[in-house]
Amino acid sequence: MTETRKLCLLGLVVLGVSGCAGTAARDADVLYQVSTIAALLEGVYDGEVTIAALKTRGDVGLGTFGALDGEMVVLDGTVYQVTADGRARVAPDDLTTPFAAVTPFESDLGASLDGRIDLRELQLALDLSLPSRNLIYAVKVTGEFAYVKVRSVPRQEEPYRKLTEVVKAQPVFEHRDVRGTLVGLRMPAYVKGINVPGYHFHFLTEDRTEGGHVLDCILTRGRADIDTTFALDMALPRDKAFAEADLAGDRQNEVHAVEK
Amino acid sequence: MTETRKLCLLGLVVLGVSGCAGTAARDADVLYQVSTIAALLEGVYDGEVTIAALKTRGDVGLGTFGALDGEMVVLDGTVYQVTADGRARVAPDDLTTPFAAVTPFESDLGASLDGRIDLRELQLALDLSLPSRNLIYAVKVTGEFAYVKVRSVPRQEEPYRKLTEVVKAQPVFEHRDVRGTLVGLRMPAYVKGINVPGYHFHFLTEDRTEGGHVLDCILTRGRADIDTTFALDMALPRDKAFAEADLAGDRQNEVHAVEK
Repeated sequence: MTETRKLCLLGLVVLGVSGCAGTAARDADVLYQVSTIAALLEGVYDGEVTIAALKTRGDVGLGTFGALDGEMVVLDGTVYQVTADGRARVAPDDLTTPFAAVTPFESDLGASLDGRIDLRELQLALDLSLPSRNLIYAVKVTGEFAYVKVRSVPRQEEPYRKLTEVVKAQPVFEHRDVRGTLVGLRMPAYVKGINVPGYHFHFLTEDRTEGGHVLDCILTRGRADIDTTFALDMALPRDKAFAEADLAGDRQNEVHAVEK
Repeated sequence: MTETRKLCLLGLVVLGVSGCAGTAARDADVLYQVSTIAALLEGVYDGEVTIAALKTRGDVGLGTFGALDGEMVVLDGTVYQVTADGRARVAPDDLTTPFAAVTPFESDLGASLDGRIDLRELQLALDLSLPSRNLIYAVKVTGEFAYVKVRSVPRQEEPYRKLTEVVKAQPVFEHRDVRGTLVGLRMPAYVKGINVPGYHFHFLTEDRTEGGHVLDCILTRGRADIDTTFALDMALPRDKAFAEADLAGDRQNEVHAVEK
């Protein structure tokens, strides 16, 4: 990134900030999380929490489905299931999730993004407007993308393989000149072990028919909205697979392998 | 520990188990946590949550107070403050806590402990009766102790020093032939960064006038009760000190240094 573009980005984001953190109602500032990233990495793919139940805890978020049947994108109160063919559909209420995180989204910070920026630059730009790297943020970026590269995951059969094995053959899809929304979370470093530190985005096209877990993108113009949350409610699975999984040890390399 | 004592311990614990996990009401199976261990290690000692508010979320637990003014023991709905002189008093409702964890305690597992065992053996014995190392447990051990070694922490003045510095001069107290209760948590490995993995006990004498953070003990006989929880609700501080703290990086050595 050139110096000029850096300054341009900074200017756009700082000038574009509207609203302020902490004005939202306190009880909405909770990220509700099902299970842990460590358990998902270990292949604990059977869900206990239904989509109907998940929706009562938030209207924006990310996750996956029972048996690892696709990527979840939660946007404006609707839960979308992006299956292994890259197609999105509204997820039935009786599906379950083994790993998801949602929050009632209220924009605390808004920014216009008008330069052509890639995923890394987008993350840097968002970071500049955050009040702290120690809080939890839900992020929506809606706009025009010159390029979006996404992946999904295929439904698994028992006995489940570890996630690092599954993603070795992940279907990848590329979209060019597409309108849509990135739905994401930014989690602080200290959540390592329970969630993914840093940014984690899923994508949904404007017509909500395609999407997936974002591997790369180039945003042409759009708008970012950030919701600062001050609480994490984590529900642990009650099933045998979770109880017996080996969840000790550092998983940063595995997290990196499955996210990228 | 000799083979005979090992067998004896195993027998006592397994035979002594009563009740079963999962019979408790679901909404009581939540550990409520204020802030993170990483923030406490960094010297974020100003509390936002009052003792009155904390008590609405649980009746058994651990923590500390604003300005690091002593060790907190929550037992049977009363919050005790063990100050730097090793004395316990009932904490006023308007005090605050920068770090604490409590749950509505309901015994899911109970065990009689009749052999003379030290702290490490007690933890091994408790581990044998847990349904999984991946869940969160509150623990109460009430009985007769041949020996208990505890510490407390002195109230700090701003600018706050890091916790690793504070504990270098921690006041330590030894009790012999004393009755009382160990109040503790057992947290899974994956909470590293937000809480202390493994066991963490505070002690309160039977007359509730003395106690502290447990460094060592020898239990002569007693009863252990364990409450399995399936959720963690974590509230993040809204203050500047938390927002600006450096909470990245691995802190296992620091956690070990302040707990032992």
